Amino acid sequence: MTRAIKTMKIRGAPVLGVAAAYGLALTASHSKAKTRENLLYELESSAELLRKTRPTAVNLFWAIDRVLKKAKQTNGDVHTIAQAVVQEAQKMADEDVATNRKIGEAGAKLIQDGDTVLTHCNAGSLATVDYGTALAVIRVAVKQGKCVNVIATETRPLQQGARLTTFELQRDGIPVTLITDTMVGYVMAKKLVNKVVVGADRIVKDAVFNKIGTYSVAVLAHEHGIPFYVAAPKSTFDLTRVSKGVIIEERSPEEVTVCGGRRIAPEGVKVINPAFDATPLKYVTAIICESGVLTPKEFRRLKS
Amino acid sequence: MTRAIKTMKIRGAPVLGVAAAYGLALTASHSKAKTRENLLYELESSAELLRKTRPTAVNLFWAIDRVLKKAKQTNGDVHTIAQAVVQEAQKMADEDVATNRKIGEAGAKLIQDGDTVLTHCNAGSLATVDYGTALAVIRVAVKQGKCVNVIATETRPLQQGARLTTFELQRDGIPVTLITDTMVGYVMAKKLVNKVVVGADRIVKDAVFNKIGTYSVAVLAHEHGIPFYVAAPKSTFDLTRVSKGVIIEERSPEEVTVCGGRRIAPEGVKVINPAFDATPLKYVTAIICESGVLTPKEFRRLKS
Repeated sequence: MTRAIKTMKIRGAPVLGVAAAYGLALTASHSKAKTRENLLYELESSAELLRKTRPTAVNLFWAIDRVLKKAKQTNGDVHTIAQAVVQEAQKMADEDVATNRKIGEAGAKLIQDGDTVLTHCNAGSLATVDYGTALAVIRVAVKQGKCVNVIATETRPLQQGARLTTFELQRDGIPVTLITDTMVGYVMAKKLVNKVVVGADRIVKDAVFNKIGTYSVAVLAHEHGIPFYVAAPKSTFDLTRVSKGVIIEERSPEEVTVCGGRRIAPEGVKVINPAFDATPLKYVTAIICESGVLTPKEFRRLKS
Repeated sequence: MTRAIKTMKIRGAPVLGVAAAYGLALTASHSKAKTRENLLYELESSAELLRKTRPTAVNLFWAIDRVLKKAKQTNGDVHTIAQAVVQEAQKMADEDVATNRKIGEAGAKLIQDGDTVLTHCNAGSLATVDYGTALAVIRVAVKQGKCVNVIATETRPLQQGARLTTFELQRDGIPVTLITDTMVGYVMAKKLVNKVVVGADRIVKDAVFNKIGTYSVAVLAHEHGIPFYVAAPKSTFDLTRVSKGVIIEERSPEEVTVCGGRRIAPEGVKVINPAFDATPLKYVTAIICESGVLTPKEFRRLKS
């Protein structure tokens, strides 16, 4: 499970949380521990490994803490605790589906018939247990009978927009146009897009952390007067922190220098590869969560 | 020659002009025309083919017109005219080298010791006859003993930044860091860059046409208070036009959906692929040409 998360076979903040919970559920159900203490020790060790996989998405930490808390609070023998852990993971998966639907319903109110929505990276069913966050907003709007077009950015280096978002939307019969990341300013200047909806990996007091490139899209949307919405579950909120306290994961340089299996830059060239960036809340029109739509002002007023 | 230009084996505005001139030189030197009228007719036919290759870079049209004018103004027999055409092409190649050096010298004054300069696409020796435009500025600054770091954007779809700019700079021993196009906002927010220098394919009264993505970089530079310079020869100036009159070349969708020889998006997905975008002059700090550094205000005052 840790390998699947590190190599991004499993990716997307909400599904990362659920995957980590199932990682602990696997530990619990395969454990040969004879005592409560031993089982809790094994779970803590697994949690430690899972916490080290990826540092930016807060859902991972939230989910691990929740499952560990459940284990510690459960009375009874080893078998009862293991069962409680598995049930908690299952409950979190179910909750994620329900949360996605609520996010979709809250956000769909912001989408008008005829809108073209730009989205960056993939915040769809391939990033959540089902339905998605940013894409849930679009899916519910379409179910309500609204005609919605989507522009998906490629999202280099890992091309989640090209590989996942276009695939999901095409399968659902929602019209989608793929652009390279260099075309964001162009489509905005040409008025080919009138709303932006993206997901989030962590929302702190002053900024939204999401896939690298989100910040550039937000600044461009701001410059063109295009609303910029962030759709994410409340498990993504981290109100104890400001952006300076968040570690941005730096991934392997090969993700940049190798593209489609082929090397695109000379050997030895220096590369940076931050997986996320921070979008200050001043560029965010509203945050769409399972409780409704929050302006940045309302978001900042939430208690941690 | 027309095929090499269309498929972008030859690319970059200044070298496109010189290549077109040599295309006409080839026609002239291989011609079996017996009369002045026949040779001029053959040259006009070649010019027609060359004009149809790529619509956005103005140097192509400027070079073709200049060579045709030379042919028409030359008195004498077929051989004399052919010789004049070949000499004119050679002269233009020599002029391009001299122009590049002058651009480099004018622009280097804007570069301080310790600067990190971001450049988009390739405006180096691989886009000109020699030395480059944007990269000439950096090269001359380095020759003056200034320590300059460069950040090169990948520049999807065709990755000229990753493939050409990093290669040229590495060969010259100038420190270069490659980023994906999604990282432009990130490096600016982190203050990892303090100047932007790009080339141009055509500069009209109100905007700079350059590689797709330039406009996004310019808006981001503006937002971060980072100077944004355009380095280009005066043959790129088109003062008879405003941006609405310029055709932006739309290239094949496969440049977007295929990356490194591998398909990155599902079959049938809709794609747009504009090769250029327009950056309004309000985002441009100055234009660096062979006559010196012009503010947008000074540029607009030039007579067409």
